[in-house]
Amino acid sequence: MSSVKTQLSPLLREELIAAAHAAADAAGQAILPHFRHIDLDTRNKAKKGFDPVTEADRAAEAAMRAVLEAARPDDAILGEEFGRKPGTSGLEWVLDPIDGTRGFLSGTPTWGVLVSVRDAGGPLFGLIDQPYIGERFAGGLGVAEFRGPRGHGRLACRRNDRLEEAILFTTFPEVGTPEEEAAFRRLSARCRLTRYGMDCYAYALVALGLVDLVVEAGLHPYDVQAPIAVIEAAGGVVTDWQGGPAHEGGRIVAAANRDIHAAALEVLTPR
Amino acid sequence: MSSVKTQLSPLLREELIAAAHAAADAAGQAILPHFRHIDLDTRNKAKKGFDPVTEADRAAEAAMRAVLEAARPDDAILGEEFGRKPGTSGLEWVLDPIDGTRGFLSGTPTWGVLVSVRDAGGPLFGLIDQPYIGERFAGGLGVAEFRGPRGHGRLACRRNDRLEEAILFTTFPEVGTPEEEAAFRRLSARCRLTRYGMDCYAYALVALGLVDLVVEAGLHPYDVQAPIAVIEAAGGVVTDWQGGPAHEGGRIVAAANRDIHAAALEVLTPR
Repeated sequence: MSSVKTQLSPLLREELIAAAHAAADAAGQAILPHFRHIDLDTRNKAKKGFDPVTEADRAAEAAMRAVLEAARPDDAILGEEFGRKPGTSGLEWVLDPIDGTRGFLSGTPTWGVLVSVRDAGGPLFGLIDQPYIGERFAGGLGVAEFRGPRGHGRLACRRNDRLEEAILFTTFPEVGTPEEEAAFRRLSARCRLTRYGMDCYAYALVALGLVDLVVEAGLHPYDVQAPIAVIEAAGGVVTDWQGGPAHEGGRIVAAANRDIHAAALEVLTPR
Repeated sequence: MSSVKTQLSPLLREELIAAAHAAADAAGQAILPHFRHIDLDTRNKAKKGFDPVTEADRAAEAAMRAVLEAARPDDAILGEEFGRKPGTSGLEWVLDPIDGTRGFLSGTPTWGVLVSVRDAGGPLFGLIDQPYIGERFAGGLGVAEFRGPRGHGRLACRRNDRLEEAILFTTFPEVGTPEEEAAFRRLSARCRLTRYGMDCYAYALVALGLVDLVVEAGLHPYDVQAPIAVIEAAGGVVTDWQGGPAHEGGRIVAAANRDIHAAALEVLTPR
């Protein structure tokens, strides 16, 4: 996808992977004291609707930025909470300190810390981290692995190519606009099972080989970069609903393989 | 609720609590080797729809029955997988080895092992156990506590009495019949936030003080006994949609307190 990708030296790869893990570690330490803290100080940052920002969110992004600015001072940083810091290296870190703030507020353990690094061609490496459970999913730069409370292993997507056998996830049953929701419902009707409410954890389940499809709409760049890196490293395919690049967010189809991806696109976006 | 409840000796209480924990331990050990095992042997036990029974489900219930038959030979046992075994003590164990089999199949860590013991008046003690995360929620017989990967503590429901501030959970957006779904949607429209897909974990979050309401329909007795014990021990209220006993399943309103319960019933079942 990118010529820069192949130019990375082994040393630089190691450095990027280590910096990503260190950033995720710092985020987890900043967040966990706030998780399930009953009088969580929340602010409503959206003018309309419900989009809480917690102290945890801001503390975690600040902690990640401190780690990355020390380890990789020339890289750019884009974060959900504190915007964009320019860089000179051609590499950019994309951070979502708590993906799934509504799940976080509700106490569910399916929110995650998203850390990724990209070049002009797209994400190179990403982490989906769930620090309460103690699970981390890593993909890119030759890595496709997870570790969790019961052990570790390699990430590998499912091979199933039939919608009738597919497990489909999305976070909210009201997927975007009425047209987007109608398209989602057409797809859901064709699948074996549809489940809701998992935030970024659903993408990790695609990379683990347990879920076939995640379909969402209205996403931000920081929501998708790390999931794209992790799922692609595990053999999956992530695009928008037209089959184009999904790096900038919007409408997302994350699929376990090329065939189930094609089958899903045919239902979501009939030609 | 029951006169028998007050007649239990401290020794018997200890024995019941210990037996419940031992049963949950045995279930977790039986289940975990199967969780996220990719070629899980599933069977479709329902004539219509999707209701997988896994080897894990059956192995876990068998393991729990073995523990309970040794520790409490005169108690009755009702389990999802192997039916009812009569007893002579007036006490009955109610077991759901994996509540949330569809979540289990999808790899989400929000299914649970449900263990409870009841007399004629209703549940006396219950456990909601999530062995992958390593979390257990216990309530009844003077106990209201949890332990998890980041520590332990007391269970206590939220005090909020306003629907406008309430977090509402259900597992599927299609809640039961069209009439039941319409009632649920009326309630959802009044609440601050509605979330889906957590299976029995949502009840644990009520007892933890993070969620105000769980509303479901079409439940079985083994789905509700343990959640009722845990939530009541934490100060919450669980009834059917008319405010009557919920021990036998059906339509369930689990609420963090009496006031939010009354507010929810008024919307679900207008007089």
